[in-house]
Amino acid sequence: MSAELRCGLGFDAHRFSCDAGRPLFLATLRWDGAGVDGDSDGDVAVHALIDALLAAAGLGDIGTLFGVGAASRGAGMHGDMMLAETVRHLRENGCAPSSASVTVVGNRPKIGPRRRQAEDAMSAICGCRVALTATTTDGMGFTGRGEGLAAIATALVDVGGRD
Amino acid sequence: MSAELRCGLGFDAHRFSCDAGRPLFLATLRWDGAGVDGDSDGDVAVHALIDALLAAAGLGDIGTLFGVGAASRGAGMHGDMMLAETVRHLRENGCAPSSASVTVVGNRPKIGPRRRQAEDAMSAICGCRVALTATTTDGMGFTGRGEGLAAIATALVDVGGRD
Amino acid sequence: MSAELRCGLGFDAHRFSCDAGRPLFLATLRWDGAGVDGDSDGDVAVHALIDALLAAAGLGDIGTLFGVGAASRGAGMHGDMMLAETVRHLRENGCAPSSASVTVVGNRPKIGPRRRQAEDAMSAICGCRVALTATTTDGMGFTGRGEGLAAIATALVDVGGRD
Repeated sequence: MSAELRCGLGFDAHRFSCDAGRPLFLATLRWDGAGVDGDSDGDVAVHALIDALLAAAGLGDIGTLFGVGAASRGAGMHGDMMLAETVRHLRENGCAPSSASVTVVGNRPKIGPRRRQAEDAMSAICGCRVALTATTTDGMGFTGRGEGLAAIATALVDVGGRD
Repeated sequence: MSAELRCGLGFDAHRFSCDAGRPLFLATLRWDGAGVDGDSDGDVAVHALIDALLAAAGLGDIGTLFGVGAASRGAGMHGDMMLAETVRHLRENGCAPSSASVTVVGNRPKIGPRRRQAEDAMSAICGCRVALTATTTDGMGFTGRGEGLAAIATALVDVGGRD
Repeated sequence: MSAELRCGLGFDAHRFSCDAGRPLFLATLRWDGAGVDGDSDGDVAVHALIDALLAAAGLGDIGTLFGVGAASRGAGMHGDMMLAETVRHLRENGCAPSSASVTVVGNRPKIGPRRRQAEDAMSAICGCRVALTATTTDGMGFTGRGEGLAAIATALVDVGGRD
């Protein structure tokens, strides 16, 4: 049984909340400043990563696994729990994450000082290295105007164990 | 002759048409609701996928293969035909698609119920698994305002047969 | 010591400058028309590629290597120099670029006629094939309004030499 790597891609975006007291979760960590709206904790980095992992494994996307809207099992779930359940689902289907990379686009939070912590947290859950980069859009577009956060993710998944 | 995988990336966006009678084509399928403007059928998922495949194979992009603007051979062509011609072009150059993943960003259509059908159609043409995920941008940006559809795609291509 | 490929992702965006005399650099080449604002030469294609390479190698992102803002060593540096330093940094850490793909999103410049030249320049620096594709957003969003340029990049990096 040899390794067979497949690529996966994911994207997510959420609007910053008008509720200044709503906490901000990103890449499984809690950050200073107001969070985003969403059924779950609105962790765009994790949601994009989940889509990339499921896509590479041929297992649909985050809506397939957790449901959508009011019926979503993701409601109230934190990113780390959703990511762990995703990885378990991959393994049950003979797949294993091989590597992944997530890019957060937005004005805040400042990722650099806690990048390694966030990478280590996501990597531990996935069982492979997960990289995190971040950038702004120079004041342009919805991320540049500070309306919300976006994230893109790519993943390689070993599907060698699938029949 | 061993496998040598190279990665490719593609992006496309088209504006929803003012002509409510224009059909919507996406990921090789026809969907309910008005389509997008464009020389061809405006299938952003397929166009992004074609760019990703050609990039990974080192064969330029969709404009290289089909021409651009008024001179485009893509005019009037459906996504499935353009994708099939792209895969044939790769094979003639000693390359073979290995896996691919496409993410559609927009308010409509609702991909979930027909994801597997769309994935199977693109996979059959490419000769490898092609995944399809979809997401909205929470009302933000041009996709959130319903102005148009965007798609990003990644692909792995085996160029082991290239000299 | 066998190959172990990891994937990396990068994104960058810069605003077109109000200074019509500022030169435009993209994918290591100089192009006609006004450039973008930025500390360095504002080469979004190279900056996205650097982030993708560093992410795949597990070495942070462009801010980690070159610093950010006023303290950035990238200030005044051209894309080719920054890319060369990035590749050297990867090699010093036992990593080697395996393939990469960059997509430029914007109204100008017209990439097609010089695509091969730009690809060859980036490939020579990286020691592997780097593909370049380009697209517009049909007049939508900040790239469609001609406010600026964006670029996304993916890379595969061989980390087989890392301990």
